[in-house]
Amino acid sequence: MTHPFIFHGQSKDWFRVTNDTLTLKLAIEKGIELDKVLVRHEPDNEEYLVEMQPDGETHHLTFWTASITANSDQDLTRYAFKILMPQRQLWLDAKGLHTRMPPRETHFKFNSQHQPPAWVNKQVFYQIFPDRFCNGNSEISVKTGEYKVSGGTRNVVAKQWGEPVDVSNGNAGCEFFGGDLHGVEQKLDYLETLGITALYLNPIFTAPSNHKYDTSDYLTVDSHLGSNQHFAELCQQIHQRDMKVMLDAVFNHTSTEHPWFNLQGLHPEVGAYQGTHSEYRDYYLFEGESQLYEGWKGIKSLPVLNFENSRVRNYIYLGDDAVIKHWLKPPYSIDGWRFDVIHMLGEGQGAKNNQHYVKAFRKAAKSVNPDCYVLGEHFFEATQWLQGDQEDGAMNYYGFAHPLRALLAKLDIAFDPISISIPEFLNWLSEARAKVPWLNQLSQLNQLDSHDTARFMELVKHDPRLFRLAATLLFSYVGTPCLYYGTELGMEGSHDPDNRRCMPWDEVDHNTYLPFIKQLIEIRKTQPALQEGDFLLLYQDDTSFAYARQLAGQCVIAAFNLGNNVKSLTLPVWKLNITNSAFFNAMTKQKVATSNNEVSIQLEPVSSILIENQR
Amino acid sequence: MTHPFIFHGQSKDWFRVTNDTLTLKLAIEKGIELDKVLVRHEPDNEEYLVEMQPDGETHHLTFWTASITANSDQDLTRYAFKILMPQRQLWLDAKGLHTRMPPRETHFKFNSQHQPPAWVNKQVFYQIFPDRFCNGNSEISVKTGEYKVSGGTRNVVAKQWGEPVDVSNGNAGCEFFGGDLHGVEQKLDYLETLGITALYLNPIFTAPSNHKYDTSDYLTVDSHLGSNQHFAELCQQIHQRDMKVMLDAVFNHTSTEHPWFNLQGLHPEVGAYQGTHSEYRDYYLFEGESQLYEGWKGIKSLPVLNFENSRVRNYIYLGDDAVIKHWLKPPYSIDGWRFDVIHMLGEGQGAKNNQHYVKAFRKAAKSVNPDCYVLGEHFFEATQWLQGDQEDGAMNYYGFAHPLRALLAKLDIAFDPISISIPEFLNWLSEARAKVPWLNQLSQLNQLDSHDTARFMELVKHDPRLFRLAATLLFSYVGTPCLYYGTELGMEGSHDPDNRRCMPWDEVDHNTYLPFIKQLIEIRKTQPALQEGDFLLLYQDDTSFAYARQLAGQCVIAAFNLGNNVKSLTLPVWKLNITNSAFFNAMTKQKVATSNNEVSIQLEPVSSILIENQR
Repeated sequence: MTHPFIFHGQSKDWFRVTNDTLTLKLAIEKGIELDKVLVRHEPDNEEYLVEMQPDGETHHLTFWTASITANSDQDLTRYAFKILMPQRQLWLDAKGLHTRMPPRETHFKFNSQHQPPAWVNKQVFYQIFPDRFCNGNSEISVKTGEYKVSGGTRNVVAKQWGEPVDVSNGNAGCEFFGGDLHGVEQKLDYLETLGITALYLNPIFTAPSNHKYDTSDYLTVDSHLGSNQHFAELCQQIHQRDMKVMLDAVFNHTSTEHPWFNLQGLHPEVGAYQGTHSEYRDYYLFEGESQLYEGWKGIKSLPVLNFENSRVRNYIYLGDDAVIKHWLKPPYSIDGWRFDVIHMLGEGQGAKNNQHYVKAFRKAAKSVNPDCYVLGEHFFEATQWLQGDQEDGAMNYYGFAHPLRALLAKLDIAFDPISISIPEFLNWLSEARAKVPWLNQLSQLNQLDSHDTARFMELVKHDPRLFRLAATLLFSYVGTPCLYYGTELGMEGSHDPDNRRCMPWDEVDHNTYLPFIKQLIEIRKTQPALQEGDFLLLYQDDTSFAYARQLAGQCVIAAFNLGNNVKSLTLPVWKLNITNSAFFNAMTKQKVATSNNEVSIQLEPVSSILIENQR
Repeated sequence: MTHPFIFHGQSKDWFRVTNDTLTLKLAIEKGIELDKVLVRHEPDNEEYLVEMQPDGETHHLTFWTASITANSDQDLTRYAFKILMPQRQLWLDAKGLHTRMPPRETHFKFNSQHQPPAWVNKQVFYQIFPDRFCNGNSEISVKTGEYKVSGGTRNVVAKQWGEPVDVSNGNAGCEFFGGDLHGVEQKLDYLETLGITALYLNPIFTAPSNHKYDTSDYLTVDSHLGSNQHFAELCQQIHQRDMKVMLDAVFNHTSTEHPWFNLQGLHPEVGAYQGTHSEYRDYYLFEGESQLYEGWKGIKSLPVLNFENSRVRNYIYLGDDAVIKHWLKPPYSIDGWRFDVIHMLGEGQGAKNNQHYVKAFRKAAKSVNPDCYVLGEHFFEATQWLQGDQEDGAMNYYGFAHPLRALLAKLDIAFDPISISIPEFLNWLSEARAKVPWLNQLSQLNQLDSHDTARFMELVKHDPRLFRLAATLLFSYVGTPCLYYGTELGMEGSHDPDNRRCMPWDEVDHNTYLPFIKQLIEIRKTQPALQEGDFLLLYQDDTSFAYARQLAGQCVIAAFNLGNNVKSLTLPVWKLNITNSAFFNAMTKQKVATSNNEVSIQLEPVSSILIENQR
């Protein structure tokens, strides 16, 4: 049996908060015989049903409204709608329509106490891997043989900009191309012109490797990238342009060269590795009095920090000038932290009491700047960290990058073959969204690729059509888009370290993707519906799908054809909360055929289109 | 695309624990081209994949095995299987097969630290509402006008055994039929002959109402039901018969007649209601100095206890002889507690810190008897309380009674119409199971009806075929069956209080359902596969379905036809972990036609059948 159209969103069009009262609005297709329309919520963990009242209509829809009180005993308020009809009932939750009460994890969720900063979803982020973005000051570049990495076993190597990355085993961390923060500074104009509004910098603190996930000093910018003073000036410039900046927080482990560990004995203090009586011994996880210690994923160059030690806790997040707080304060005033492998952090082996630390990191960050963006890195499902009280958003591999890769590249994250249908793809997206409160959905960081995955262009075997289609999805989907440097140029490269090639600045002027990406960014930035509008699936079949984002009478429809034939679609725009509007191709500005409140479009093989109503 | 048959269970056939090593076994249909078979788990919240090795075969199946280490940082270990085939992959979790990694909540779960008692799933429980089961001593029966209930506004009324229950508003709690613990004692032979092995008694502590959910003394058996001494003797008799006994724990609220509250001023102490300076004032939740207080669901006769008060905590669960501990100790040594509305309990309004109290109740109970059954009452989804560290099992409304009622009676718990298909029904069951660790699935308390729902026979409009079908499901499904008194007789009655009619003892000798239920119980008790065997769906279509429970070479197949026509089913018993077995109708012992490892059966309209292999 096909279900009638029933919709509720959590944008301000459908969901209003006044003190602790939540006023909810629901749309139901006309012509359906209704016995009763109810909201279900759980003020004390027990079901309460509140009857909804009719509240206006359009030609195709009736609206219903009711108010409930936000829960007082916990941050989250969950609710769902029960629609009674003769002989049957339907339920609407964040996952869609059900013939019975849906499971609790997908009920609509509102977090009244811990909300992500409102600025996040308005941004277009840009991720920079500093050594590979731009060399702005060759004087500070690493010189071949200048020092040793990997516990002193391997010399650093300086390479020419644009030389191929050495993908042979073991050389990944020790070759340097000279990118630095001066380079970032020099390219701010480029980024601003592209439309970027927020930078996410991979680690910039002192560390031996080129990736700098092996911190040896949390309070000093690596001298090969710049200086603390220069970073402060860069932050000022970024803020003057109304841009934001987010740093990488690598607190699960340090470098073996951190003075606390002091593997090579290079520091005057006696580090943990040098002796069992070192005052730093308990900063790490050693086996008894031996030199055996816990390394991240068994990697010995990345000794795991022991958060059971109160000095570690004080240094990282508890103290008045703890690392988390330090960089959020002037003169840097960074706007967010991206917490590396945050789910793995805890006490001892495993990730004991992980939740406690994530909450504590959040609290420390927000104590300096309540508007700071707390972003977690999770390569897999992040739902449990995204219920309000821990992270504002996650690097959205589970709910965006992985399904997209599976659908378009037919590869999973381990490069294993995977085959999912379009309905399965949409179900994956919807399951990932539904379990997270709406405000956190909007604050998820969506990427096509990153320093930890192969370049998307490589994954789709250099098919420009799939790349464009994916980019359209990135800028129209729920969540905050982030471009990994060079993705705007369709940069190629296989998995780490080949995904960290030098930015090809000489290609910028004649690159064929750049204008397209620029236009997508422009549309994203000028359409609040794409930033915080509700998501509404309009159509799906085995080769195509279309959804709308809508807010305050504005909408953008994104339609996708994955098939090898031209596809004609008729989209039911009567489902939208929009009346008497004309529709236009958002790229070409051409009018789109509309009749009977349906929009008719033609999609070329393997292509996508963005349609907006008149602004 | 149809998926190949792939199976993993969590009985000892498929899952073995040696110290902290979990050895897992998987069955895959032969003839499938496999590239790799992997187990995924998360020892530190990050994905680890372990390759499985071939380990034997049958004519139709190949087996694979691998070992993983149980998580050390948390009670739960989650795992799922990744099966790589040319061009695609499949995942198996507790919910079934998926074309991509399934969401975390349905991964197979094993709780190494907090397990339910092993005895629970071997029981057949029987729920007794004491006032209505059997009058064994008329001398102690309530006399009309003997005292007042509802805050002194209404006289108690004594009625004759078998008189209709007064279903008019407000009389529900004040009429008494004289059932008592002496009656229970007298009927132990009846219960033992029926096959019952465990009793669940609705509240028996001193309380004004007939239902006794309004406790006025947690440490004394109500004098109209018996005495502490008599209850101790009854417990001894029950235990001598190798039977168990579970009591109702009503700690969310008390009666207004509890001396702590003392609404009517009947007690010498000054209770909370009498004055703001009462030492018991903070046992409850009063508004300032007023006589306004929090009642359970707004019901003023049930004032809610304030667990923020350490004296309440000490009295109920913390003290050496706290209520929870008291009755678990000799001379009573009860075997379990059923915690009333446990999800609503907490501090202040809402259910603040609810999880803390449920864990604490568990800890208190297990400190006296580690083998005590901790059962939670939840009218809706109980998943979050069933992850090991809180409850052993729940009254399984969400995962059993509600879906069954929806499918067969087309009513939801609010008596609203509901229409679900058989696939939707099976999906509901499977979703409810999959999110709970296997051992807790086995310890769920399944019922067709209870003192809080209409009698099942009434719900299915007295259709004996649907009643028998439901009973077959009850005794063959995953979880521990519990009969509400009289359900073995097909007792009728609408919702509370009509579902609490007097047990019709004069019908026992000629009742048509009793022999059928007795035979089901006999099968359940002699078939370990039904108690702790794995569940395997064998067949489903729009009018019928069949599943198997299998353990150690034994299996029971339950098949159901909901259609109005005779149905022929061919069941693929080659999927079972059983070789060269003959199959029999478990009721008639007649042989069932088998060929090519498929069993062929015919089902009458609206009927069910149980099939077992040779024992």
